[in-house]
Amino acid sequence: MLFGGIEAGGTKFVCAVGDRDGNIMERIQIPTTKPTETIGKVHDFFKEFKLNAIGLGSFGPIDINPLSDTYGYITSTPKQEWRNFPFVNTLKELFQVPIRFTTDVNAAALGESIVGAAKGLDSCFYMTIGTGIGAGAVVQGKILEGVTHPEMGHILVRRHPEDHFKGNCLYHSDCFEGIAAGPAIEARWGEKGNKLAENEEVWKLEGYYIAQALMNYILILSPKKIILGGGVMNQKQIFTHVHFYLNQLLNDYVSLPEILENYIVSPGLNDRSGIVGSLILAIQAIEEIK
Amino acid sequence: MLFGGIEAGGTKFVCAVGDRDGNIMERIQIPTTKPTETIGKVHDFFKEFKLNAIGLGSFGPIDINPLSDTYGYITSTPKQEWRNFPFVNTLKELFQVPIRFTTDVNAAALGESIVGAAKGLDSCFYMTIGTGIGAGAVVQGKILEGVTHPEMGHILVRRHPEDHFKGNCLYHSDCFEGIAAGPAIEARWGEKGNKLAENEEVWKLEGYYIAQALMNYILILSPKKIILGGGVMNQKQIFTHVHFYLNQLLNDYVSLPEILENYIVSPGLNDRSGIVGSLILAIQAIEEIK
Repeated sequence: MLFGGIEAGGTKFVCAVGDRDGNIMERIQIPTTKPTETIGKVHDFFKEFKLNAIGLGSFGPIDINPLSDTYGYITSTPKQEWRNFPFVNTLKELFQVPIRFTTDVNAAALGESIVGAAKGLDSCFYMTIGTGIGAGAVVQGKILEGVTHPEMGHILVRRHPEDHFKGNCLYHSDCFEGIAAGPAIEARWGEKGNKLAENEEVWKLEGYYIAQALMNYILILSPKKIILGGGVMNQKQIFTHVHFYLNQLLNDYVSLPEILENYIVSPGLNDRSGIVGSLILAIQAIEEIK
Repeated sequence: MLFGGIEAGGTKFVCAVGDRDGNIMERIQIPTTKPTETIGKVHDFFKEFKLNAIGLGSFGPIDINPLSDTYGYITSTPKQEWRNFPFVNTLKELFQVPIRFTTDVNAAALGESIVGAAKGLDSCFYMTIGTGIGAGAVVQGKILEGVTHPEMGHILVRRHPEDHFKGNCLYHSDCFEGIAAGPAIEARWGEKGNKLAENEEVWKLEGYYIAQALMNYILILSPKKIILGGGVMNQKQIFTHVHFYLNQLLNDYVSLPEILENYIVSPGLNDRSGIVGSLILAIQAIEEIK
């Protein structure tokens, strides 16, 4: 059997064809332009294969409620051309196979939980900090979803008293994403993060905000592993600051694994968490039908 | 078949005997004093019945990891005499039946999800605001647990700029519980909450903090129903302030049920969420064995 995975991001799509064991046989990257164009290229890639199912991890917000009229749509994205795009229906018409649909970060959390850094655990938390902040979780073996999908990057954190950057989230100004994503770092310090590697103050402040967010995620979700990816987290020195502030904040109130270095880690799949998770979604779509 | 439920609170235990449909046949309240004394009375009550299983929702923190040496213990509670009390083992020896163990708020969330305000939904969030703040969640039909049980009352919220009360959480000073639980209200305003019913400022501020916490719970868990109980929430005017601030904070970023009055509600089981949930735990313990 062959499975298709699509990691649909705001700047690029990654498509892959894999087998039942999650081995990737073919893989392609497609720039995210207009839906007709991008989906056309997705079709060109997959049509050479006899796929049994497709797993789709998409940028959002998306409608994941199967009872909704707009199930499978990308909804209120700032990317005009993709707004109200019927993603699942379009793919169903093209490929006539079962499709499983969730957010890109949910797919990444699933990938990490099955074959990545949380392999063997039935619970994990995955967050990417890059141009935005998104997070997904696996709880008791399943992707966490509810009335809609989580939007964990937008939680409220407390501003550092000496940080006067006002925040740049369009909806919440200084929510976590608004003060800690890549664009916030650039706006605050006047340079992109990768040019600021030597400036310890940058990463100390970043660790301060990430630790606050993690405190809330831990107290609410109690994940068995925390996986932090995305461009910003390539500055590995952040981890040390996160551990320091998180210990200070939690103040031994909850029993976490003693060595935080083994609890809060980088992705086991590097930048492939999302596409591997999307493939696993496709496999699960078939397993559920049987 | 007969089932036993125990809602073990810090000031009182509620014990009940019920049938497979969750009907409560006998019920008793026991003050929480010393373990030998309180458990003795629990034994006296239950020994008249031939129980098939016991469900136990306990105050905490507790150890819920079945692989741990201290599984089934109450762990680091400030109540000295209950610290390191082997709760599950003690009951197992007395009654020789399967026991299912979780936190009191997790049990309450389960009760509300099966027969309470979230009946028919596979997801809900339950929070009690009283002498402390505790919350539990049901996710895809199961109680949310992970590396340990959640401690959602201790998340960080932002202080209101005009609120100068320093907070009274022993671990985190001004976490959510430290500034919004009953004792914080009393310490800030100099009187118990039930004497402050007419003082709108009190409940406006309380709603401000609860809305912030709910924003984080919603963005992280995406629950299908939010249930707010406990003594403080008997001041029903809080709900109006919570709706107001929550709308302001979320700023239409997530699609919630349009009428917040139907989404954020009081317990369907009044003060029986915990004991009913404990009984359901007992029923589930048997269903899982079969």
